[in-house]
Amino acid sequence: MLTTPSGKTRARALGIPFEGEPGPLNAITDVAGVEVGYATLIRGERALEVGAGPVRTGVTAILPRGHASAGRSVIAGMFSLNGNGELTGSHWAAEVGRCDGPITITNTHSCGVARDASIRWLVARGQQVGWSMPVAGETYDGWLNDINGFHVSEADVFAALDSAAGGSIEEGSVGGGTGMIAFGFKAGSGTASRRVDAAGGTWTLGAFVQANFGLREQLVVAGVPVGRALKDWTPDARGRTETGSIIAVVATDAPLLPHQMQRLARRTGLGVGRTGATSGHGSGDIFIAISTANQAAVDAGPEAPIRFEALPDAALNPLFAATIQAVEEAILNALTANEAMTGRDDHFVPALPHVEVQRLLGIGDG
Amino acid sequence: MLTTPSGKTRARALGIPFEGEPGPLNAITDVAGVEVGYATLIRGERALEVGAGPVRTGVTAILPRGHASAGRSVIAGMFSLNGNGELTGSHWAAEVGRCDGPITITNTHSCGVARDASIRWLVARGQQVGWSMPVAGETYDGWLNDINGFHVSEADVFAALDSAAGGSIEEGSVGGGTGMIAFGFKAGSGTASRRVDAAGGTWTLGAFVQANFGLREQLVVAGVPVGRALKDWTPDARGRTETGSIIAVVATDAPLLPHQMQRLARRTGLGVGRTGATSGHGSGDIFIAISTANQAAVDAGPEAPIRFEALPDAALNPLFAATIQAVEEAILNALTANEAMTGRDDHFVPALPHVEVQRLLGIGDG
Amino acid sequence: MLTTPSGKTRARALGIPFEGEPGPLNAITDVAGVEVGYATLIRGERALEVGAGPVRTGVTAILPRGHASAGRSVIAGMFSLNGNGELTGSHWAAEVGRCDGPITITNTHSCGVARDASIRWLVARGQQVGWSMPVAGETYDGWLNDINGFHVSEADVFAALDSAAGGSIEEGSVGGGTGMIAFGFKAGSGTASRRVDAAGGTWTLGAFVQANFGLREQLVVAGVPVGRALKDWTPDARGRTETGSIIAVVATDAPLLPHQMQRLARRTGLGVGRTGATSGHGSGDIFIAISTANQAAVDAGPEAPIRFEALPDAALNPLFAATIQAVEEAILNALTANEAMTGRDDHFVPALPHVEVQRLLGIGDG
Amino acid sequence: MLTTPSGKTRARALGIPFEGEPGPLNAITDVAGVEVGYATLIRGERALEVGAGPVRTGVTAILPRGHASAGRSVIAGMFSLNGNGELTGSHWAAEVGRCDGPITITNTHSCGVARDASIRWLVARGQQVGWSMPVAGETYDGWLNDINGFHVSEADVFAALDSAAGGSIEEGSVGGGTGMIAFGFKAGSGTASRRVDAAGGTWTLGAFVQANFGLREQLVVAGVPVGRALKDWTPDARGRTETGSIIAVVATDAPLLPHQMQRLARRTGLGVGRTGATSGHGSGDIFIAISTANQAAVDAGPEAPIRFEALPDAALNPLFAATIQAVEEAILNALTANEAMTGRDDHFVPALPHVEVQRLLGIGDG
Repeated sequence: MLTTPSGKTRARALGIPFEGEPGPLNAITDVAGVEVGYATLIRGERALEVGAGPVRTGVTAILPRGHASAGRSVIAGMFSLNGNGELTGSHWAAEVGRCDGPITITNTHSCGVARDASIRWLVARGQQVGWSMPVAGETYDGWLNDINGFHVSEADVFAALDSAAGGSIEEGSVGGGTGMIAFGFKAGSGTASRRVDAAGGTWTLGAFVQANFGLREQLVVAGVPVGRALKDWTPDARGRTETGSIIAVVATDAPLLPHQMQRLARRTGLGVGRTGATSGHGSGDIFIAISTANQAAVDAGPEAPIRFEALPDAALNPLFAATIQAVEEAILNALTANEAMTGRDDHFVPALPHVEVQRLLGIGDG
Repeated sequence: MLTTPSGKTRARALGIPFEGEPGPLNAITDVAGVEVGYATLIRGERALEVGAGPVRTGVTAILPRGHASAGRSVIAGMFSLNGNGELTGSHWAAEVGRCDGPITITNTHSCGVARDASIRWLVARGQQVGWSMPVAGETYDGWLNDINGFHVSEADVFAALDSAAGGSIEEGSVGGGTGMIAFGFKAGSGTASRRVDAAGGTWTLGAFVQANFGLREQLVVAGVPVGRALKDWTPDARGRTETGSIIAVVATDAPLLPHQMQRLARRTGLGVGRTGATSGHGSGDIFIAISTANQAAVDAGPEAPIRFEALPDAALNPLFAATIQAVEEAILNALTANEAMTGRDDHFVPALPHVEVQRLLGIGDG
Repeated sequence: MLTTPSGKTRARALGIPFEGEPGPLNAITDVAGVEVGYATLIRGERALEVGAGPVRTGVTAILPRGHASAGRSVIAGMFSLNGNGELTGSHWAAEVGRCDGPITITNTHSCGVARDASIRWLVARGQQVGWSMPVAGETYDGWLNDINGFHVSEADVFAALDSAAGGSIEEGSVGGGTGMIAFGFKAGSGTASRRVDAAGGTWTLGAFVQANFGLREQLVVAGVPVGRALKDWTPDARGRTETGSIIAVVATDAPLLPHQMQRLARRTGLGVGRTGATSGHGSGDIFIAISTANQAAVDAGPEAPIRFEALPDAALNPLFAATIQAVEEAILNALTANEAMTGRDDHFVPALPHVEVQRLLGIGDG
Repeated sequence: MLTTPSGKTRARALGIPFEGEPGPLNAITDVAGVEVGYATLIRGERALEVGAGPVRTGVTAILPRGHASAGRSVIAGMFSLNGNGELTGSHWAAEVGRCDGPITITNTHSCGVARDASIRWLVARGQQVGWSMPVAGETYDGWLNDINGFHVSEADVFAALDSAAGGSIEEGSVGGGTGMIAFGFKAGSGTASRRVDAAGGTWTLGAFVQANFGLREQLVVAGVPVGRALKDWTPDARGRTETGSIIAVVATDAPLLPHQMQRLARRTGLGVGRTGATSGHGSGDIFIAISTANQAAVDAGPEAPIRFEALPDAALNPLFAATIQAVEEAILNALTANEAMTGRDDHFVPALPHVEVQRLLGIGDG
């Protein structure tokens, strides 16, 4: 829980104080059934040659109900804090409160191949029924990656989907997060979870983010304006205009109805805000929240009335807080469990300096 | 079913062909528990003297779960086809899919008193808990009524609420519909209902409209462009610019979730469209759909998960069709079960000429 | 104007009465700058072999500002009447009221390749700046087409884009409309336009639809319930459940702001409704409206305030009516300018019987 | 700027660090033309007797374009972070991006009288044209106030409107904010402003809040979790469930279009979030943003196209940041420029302890 599978340090290990109680893995995979897979594409160095690289990109796949039920739906709600981005499947989520099949996240110009390949992967596995409106999201990695080379292939999407698994998951520059930058530091994939008591039950809520937003000076860690102090630590080479984005997926096993998932999705923005975000014009800040509960109801046919279980709306406050907390920590994990990267045209992005952050927060050895 | 309680002819009695099977009353009160009441204010003649009259206005009250449960919630969804209007309670409906307490409809400048008085009426009856966000809608009657005289009082709202009852309900120039005009003919309050089979059950869906929209030439009855033929039958004295509105309430006993009520509310616009509406700039076309089912779930406290029954989304087509059909017929009832009216400054609005309509449709004695 | 470039009869040629005054081509290309191109894929016969065919699909490309400005934005607004569909670029349209670059429409499982290929096509032409969120829509052609064979390639999308041109455009079973069905008749691509006077100017508004919705019995032509009469003319082989969709693009040269484009998009649903639609559960009814005016303002950088021209909201009624009229006629053109088609597994879809329609409407030679 | 007109200490005077440059008054009235007025109702002590008191409530009136143009429109956008509240005029703002006439804010059960009285006040002054859809918002003061006594009269609303003026404005327990509570401390009315450079110009943006939300332990001041430290300083007598709300009005002289006002309104939530809010279920967190620019365009009739000036969307980041900063400071002003209050049933709400906050932040004399 304090390090990623590959041994990278997570935010909690630095001593950053977080609210709430995490799940055992402190990951979205704490929600039973949720599986995550990555395809990470890192090839080439030096000058950009469109179509040749350098390549710093990838695909993240999230299976809400695992491989066995990859083509089945979960209850979902969506919110766009700033719509300078893409999240396919949003019309369907808005209409019936469902997310069908895999969720993929990749770079901005490969969102389409991720979407169609999700369908094809289901077809190939015999899990596609009727038609599909899968969810595919994106953030922009063109500062490090040859994004106009369109390096993400259908095979890469399949690889991410095939590799999806439960358990601890890697963070940082992996999958769709490979070429991403937040607050002028290397960012990308991050996750966290919370356990909450509500309406007489105990529920797990997890967040997964592809973090690619924010100016250096905006970064706030646990309330401390770390970014202002680190503004000139190394230059935020991309210049002063925020051009990033964040896609967040919030998953829970709490039984919730479609409108309640929208409520969770709206709170996701408050979690992003806790890291200092102002949701700049160039930022595609789009969030989807899913509930894996009510499986039988979601799978039922049109022949008869169905039964849903749901937490009362008046009982949701602990889940709202958990959403905010898990999203904040997932973003900080994407920044902490990471390393510096050099991409196209020798563009260099430093890693978040752990010791400096600790020093500014007065924690750990800092 | 062919005449109103006061003996006015309803659209169906003219021989106008309608799709679908109506409920026994062909009214929103076919939905068990729904009660409707009116306060009708008609006072004074001749020249407008602001504050003195003439008065041609009123209040309509709809109790979704009747007097006995007047302060309790139903599941609700809302849609604004053209937001040149007011419907309080919409933020709450959008957030949690509920409508609490009475629904009132009145004139544009009295929407506030209707709203607050609904709360006060609940307080006085001991049925108000915590706080309330009641639904109050409006359309504009200022061509016939001294709207800037603010003649609707709290007592009038109480009277409408007190008089709410099930059974057959009056239509035309009653309640909030008193001073309303549609397609250059006297309009106002109208209702209709449908019985539908879906998901193995039989359900009732009713519509209530306060119709105040449309230019003469736009009127379509059962597909026939009646308005074009009647364009010069009598002048549409208000001139050529559409300035009206329509508030529609759709109620059903089918068990539906909040997002499904929004789906019904969106179809309401298709029903309005069938009468020839183009939803002009000046038209406040706002619709709310409510489900009286799931009473125990809606009333439950926050202590434990609750159970909802719901029709599968894939089974809703008959309810979509019923919504469209009932709304269309309710509008035509508001026009048909009506009489000419003279209001402020001798403004005169003719009634829909039944025989002419029959003649144009080739039905009845026309 | 009465026939398509290939000589197919358009709806107006049958004598169907339409409201409003069409532009010279009665097509979306009456709006200056708008170009439309198709790639039509028809290959193979007999039994479905996934991946081999039969193929009955394609891609439609709409360049709002023509080839010369293919990568530049137009003002846009979007509305989903029933979100069982996909329209990428919707978050961006909702956020800033813009549509960047080409609009493509294809089958449900190829929406992604159409989206990404639009970007790649811009990149290859040196017209892509920063990143892109292109609009790609879809409807389902799997009853005639091997949709799970994913036959639409990047090259097909390029071909549609390359072929985009002004002037008269083909209708019916071409481009993305190749395998589409509406009301149990062969449908697909259709277009129409209107000239309107508003706010002291004369403006052109055009509609393009990919029509794939509706049950046989629902079809209404100019108010006449033609579908009921033709219910058993030939069987609606797909059975009784509506599973189609409609994507509509409305374009105008009238100067309008983003919120006004949303108003037009909402009226699009009323036009669809005039053909008898009930917007069934399975129908992805998603509409985008674009304005080609204000080019300099849309292209301006962030350095200084910009100037927009706009029609006053209170002057929009003629454009609302034009939207409804053009959408209705475009749908009927997609049905009329068409022929029967046999697709996978010998699935047969009849063409709309012109003479029968004329007979039911009492027009032409019918 | 450091004290209110009555001499109360504002947040900035405590030494709390804030980002950005405030306007000369650090108030919404820094936006030229904006006027604010209050009616404050404080009567009675001891036990609640419904209808008799104690009364701790009031009305706030904001005239976006001052008394001289009180009945004219400004460009507006709205966002509901949590819709457990009321803001009339929202359908109109969503449809055409306008706010007509005065904005009033009061208690939950008096929102209607405030709305209707706004119209009547315009009528009495000869400033009402056609019909009106004024904006009236509310938060709940029933813990201190006899809210079910409906003590806000039309005369009180008139008084608030009549007293609206520019210049420094009072904060804390005045106007609609009289009986409000935030984070377990006495709160209510607060304001702040920012000056920003964007698109080559300098603009003023101001925020006004009626703050009534948050649990004691959630309060964050300038990143410091003050609330956790003050959790037991005095009990948060209302118990542990958040039941409050916040209405925020953001005004600017920057020329912005309707969709851009929505963008500002969405950022308002991030400002609320900076104070620790989680937007609990019971919280009506509804925000409206208005622009006073483009007066001629907004006032123009429907006869001809009109010209709007607007900042480019890509230039809005400074305004997004200013919104967040001003909203955060306005909330802290509502808490800081305040005093303890005892209301109905001797309910006692302490004031924010200035010295404790200073001590926790390590500022001033604390």
